Order: sequence, then C-alpha cells, then structure tokens
Amino acid sequence: MVVTPTISSSSSVEDISSQQINILKAADDLYGGVRVEMKEPIDYNDFDTLLRTSISHWREQGKKGIWLKLPLELANLVEAAVKQGFWYHHAEPTFLMLVYWIPRTDHTLPANASHTVGVGAFIMNNKREILVVQENNGRFRGTGMWKLPTGIVDAGEDIGEAVIREVKEETGIKAEFMELLAVRQSHDLSFGKSDLFFVCMLRPNSFDIQKQDSEIAAAKWMAFEEYAAQSYIEKREHFNYIAKICAAKIDNDYIGFGAHTATKASYQRKKSCLYFNNNGGLVVPDNI
Amino acid sequence: MVVTPTISSSSSVEDISSQQINILKAADDLYGGVRVEMKEPIDYNDFDTLLRTSISHWREQGKKGIWLKLPLELANLVEAAVKQGFWYHHAEPTFLMLVYWIPRTDHTLPANASHTVGVGAFIMNNKREILVVQENNGRFRGTGMWKLPTGIVDAGEDIGEAVIREVKEETGIKAEFMELLAVRQSHDLSFGKSDLFFVCMLRPNSFDIQKQDSEIAAAKWMAFEEYAAQSYIEKREHFNYIAKICAAKIDNDYIGFGAHTATKASYQRKKSCLYFNNNGGLVVPDNI
Repeated sequence: MVVTPTISSSSSVEDISSQQINILKAADDLYGGVRVEMKEPIDYNDFDTLLRTSISHWREQGKKGIWLKLPLELANLVEAAVKQGFWYHHAEPTFLMLVYWIPRTDHTLPANASHTVGVGAFIMNNKREILVVQENNGRFRGTGMWKLPTGIVDAGEDIGEAVIREVKEETGIKAEFMELLAVRQSHDLSFGKSDLFFVCMLRPNSFDIQKQDSEIAAAKWMAFEEYAAQSYIEKREHFNYIAKICAAKIDNDYIGFGAHTATKASYQRKKSCLYFNNNGGLVVPDNI
Repeated sequence: MVVTPTISSSSSVEDISSQQINILKAADDLYGGVRVEMKEPIDYNDFDTLLRTSISHWREQGKKGIWLKLPLELANLVEAAVKQGFWYHHAEPTFLMLVYWIPRTDHTLPANASHTVGVGAFIMNNKREILVVQENNGRFRGTGMWKLPTGIVDAGEDIGEAVIREVKEETGIKAEFMELLAVRQSHDLSFGKSDLFFVCMLRPNSFDIQKQDSEIAAAKWMAFEEYAAQSYIEKREHFNYIAKICAAKIDNDYIGFGAHTATKASYQRKKSCLYFNNNGGLVVPDNI
C-alpha cells in the first residue's frame, strides 16, 4: 500500500490520499514509533474508528511504539484507547500519556520517571551558627526539633537552583551554592517511587531571617553543636552521619562535589550540570 | 450529621449506616485526605452518583485531598471523575491516580516523580583496561564509539544494585560497587522530566565477557587511554571531565562518595543508602 499522508484541516486527523482513509495525525519518533497528540474534541465512536484504522496503517508501515497524549479535557477517549490495547505510561495534571506496542516482541519503551528529588541546605554564618527551621507539617511537626531547610527539586530545575530557592522561600536568606556534601537514596516513599536527597552546602549572602508563615513555624541561626546534639539526630544513623559530615566540613576536613555547568545538547533548553570532587583543580581548572 | 461507616459487601462501596447512603470505601491519609482504590467493575452512572455523594460526605467531614486510584480495567470511570473536577496525578502501566482538592485554598498535594535516574559503570581490570560496549540503539549506534556500560535505575532499586545488574546483563561481568565518582543532572529528556546520571566505580570479580545480544552490539576490555582518546569524548565537555575523573581515580588521586547503607524507617521495606566522602574513615568508621 502506497500512502501519501497529507495534513487535513482537522488538527488531529490526516487523510491518506489515494484511498481517502482518515488516520490520526502522527509524528515519527526516533525509535521507529509514532506520537499522537489529541487536541480537538472528537466523538467517542469516531475516535474509536480512527484509532483502529490508524493502528492498522502503522502496523503495515512497520511502526513499533505508539504514544497517545490525551489532554484532561478529552478524558472521554481514554476508555476507547484502553479497549484497543493501550496502557498508561505516565500522567501529569493536564494530560495522560498512553502507549501501545505493535510488534509481537516485548516492548522496549522507556520507563516513567522513577524518583522524586529533594535538597537540604547546610548554611553557616561566621559565628558557627547554622540556619535551621521548624516546619508546620511533616513528621517533626510539634516536636520542637530544629532541622535543615529542605525542599523539592522540580523537573527542569538544577539541584543548586532548588536549594537556593527553598532557603530563600522558607527563611528569606540569600545564599549561593558551594558543594554537594552527600546523597541519600530512599525507597517506598510517595506512590512507590524512590527519592534522592542531596545535602548541599551554601554560603549565605544575607543574614536577616524573614520566615515564610505557611510552611515554617520557626527559623533561626543556631550554634552548630546545639543542632547536632538534638536527640533525633543522635538517634538516627543517617542524620548523625550528615551532622558529622557538616562538622568535618566546618573544620575544612571534608571535600564534596562541586558543580560544573557545561554541556547542552541540541535538544535541551538548559545546560547539564556535573557534580564531582575537583579538589584544587585536580580534574579541571577551577576557574571554569 | 453523625455517620458510622461500615464496610459493605462490595469491596469499593461503604454504607453510611443511619441514612443508608452509600459512599465509596476510603482510607484516611496522614494529611487530612482520603484514598480510594477502585477494584471491582461498576456501572458508569452508579460510579458517578457514588462519587458525587462521597465528595459531599468528605466535604462535610472537612477532608482535603481525595486520591482516586483506577486500575486500567476501569478506564470507563476516568471520564466521570474528571467531569466532577478530578485531575491526573500520575500513572503507571496498570493504573491511573487522580486527585481532587476539597478546600477553597490552593492544593498542597505532593508532586509526581520528577526524575529518571541512570548509572554508568567505570570498571577496570589489572591491565588498566576498562569494560566498554557498543549499543544496538541510541544516539551512538553505528558510530563505532565505545562507551561505558549504562542503564536505568528502577524505582525501589539502589544505585549500587542497578549498576551491578546492568554490567552483568550487558556483559556478563560480575562486579561490586566501590564509589560514586560523579553525578550529572540533565533536563528536557524524556517527557519533560529531568535525569540524574551517576558515574559509579566498580571492581570486577570476573573477566570473561558474555555480551547480551539484544541491546549490545559489542563489548570488550579496552586500554583506558584508547577509550579516553575517542573523539566524541574529547569533544564533549562532560564526557571529557568524566574521563579525567576516571584517570585521576586510576592514579589514586580522586575520592568519590562511598555507599553507607543504614537507616530504614518503619514505613520502608528497604534500607536507605547514604553516599559521601568517607576518606579513610573520617566521618564514620570505615568498617560499617
């Protein structure tokens, strides 16, 4: 079958010329598959027929994976796709991504995002006091425990940007990123996903605390030794290690990973950042 | 209104006693919300009514977030939930999780997983040769470039476990985890998510290569200098840095982050792992 796809007036449908068969408008991906993004409302039965015809067409073309993006407004089409053999790949607040695998082999589609990412800030003034907070929510709420400012790294956000943003939001303190001191990987947190938590050292550029009221119950500068002596830190192995790492850093006895922003591939809007131990310019000159 | 929820015979519905109102069976979460997991088939209109009644009930109870988990088999119910104001939170191959926020304030529901996580293995034999592969797919396919074995870290999998598994799968080589050498964060990769890539040093415990045919075109031990001199490594800043880090490691001039498996919270099935620079037992005794 010779097909010459042309784009029809409808944004989601294209017309295969010689036989006047309508199929869904699709873009080829780099792995022998196609991507379909539905945008306009369409009747359930019309979509059902179009999808069936389209799959046949792509099968004849030897296509592999089919990605189908349905915006929240077109939730009425989800059932039709699932009945034809699609399954869920991932979802965000405004859309659902479904996939289908045409070959008779196991699929080789990439996995969904698997980790949430968090940051904690170790930030000290010149009196050996560190910035600590008490939160309005979470497991230490109401316990009187002081903790490092922490937060979530969003998709598209650098670890270093995220930790600076969280410190500013929670305490009003302006700071700059110095080093990754440690990384913790935990499992079985939100929704069966895993979590990576980066302990970051920051240098403060301001010192007057303006706490955020909605999330933060209290914020202050606290003597490091007082922070580290809190019972919840002494009792929990990893908190204890992190406090020891910070203590070693204070004494200039610890080297973490510095940030080296560098390459950006053509398909990326933002540069990648590599974190490593560049102790004294050992790996690359320190002035990059 | 006094309600005394009792569990009815249907697994997804409960009966609010005195008034004989049916609502969806729900479990309280730790943040003032409820979680509903639909399992049994139910008619669209029956579900629509039950969901409406349930939301009213939870609103009267002062509940906040509603989590609604719909298995793939119940895709027919997605539209009903969306029409009542639910939106998508996340999806996995077998289910879709929707959310709804009852209060008139901005929601404080946690974000979906934001990062994919990858690993690369730096693994050397006693002839200063490193284990390298050529892949059947991906952007270096057919280029003749030799690269470190790489792979994806699954949710629930330790970074150290993942890199050992990938090396074994791709090359048959058995190895043990030594150190994280570097971490790269990249953006705008799959599905708008970001990616964390951990360069790991492993020590080989076997040396005969048995390559996997489906993903790997070729695998061999290659002189490190020959690997590092490949043009794609010299030209790409981060690949170049990573090669320099490996070279420094070979010369015992580099300290990365070792793995320290330790704490497990009561709600976790698996221990967390903290990676840090424990140079000579500086932070914690090295024999843990």
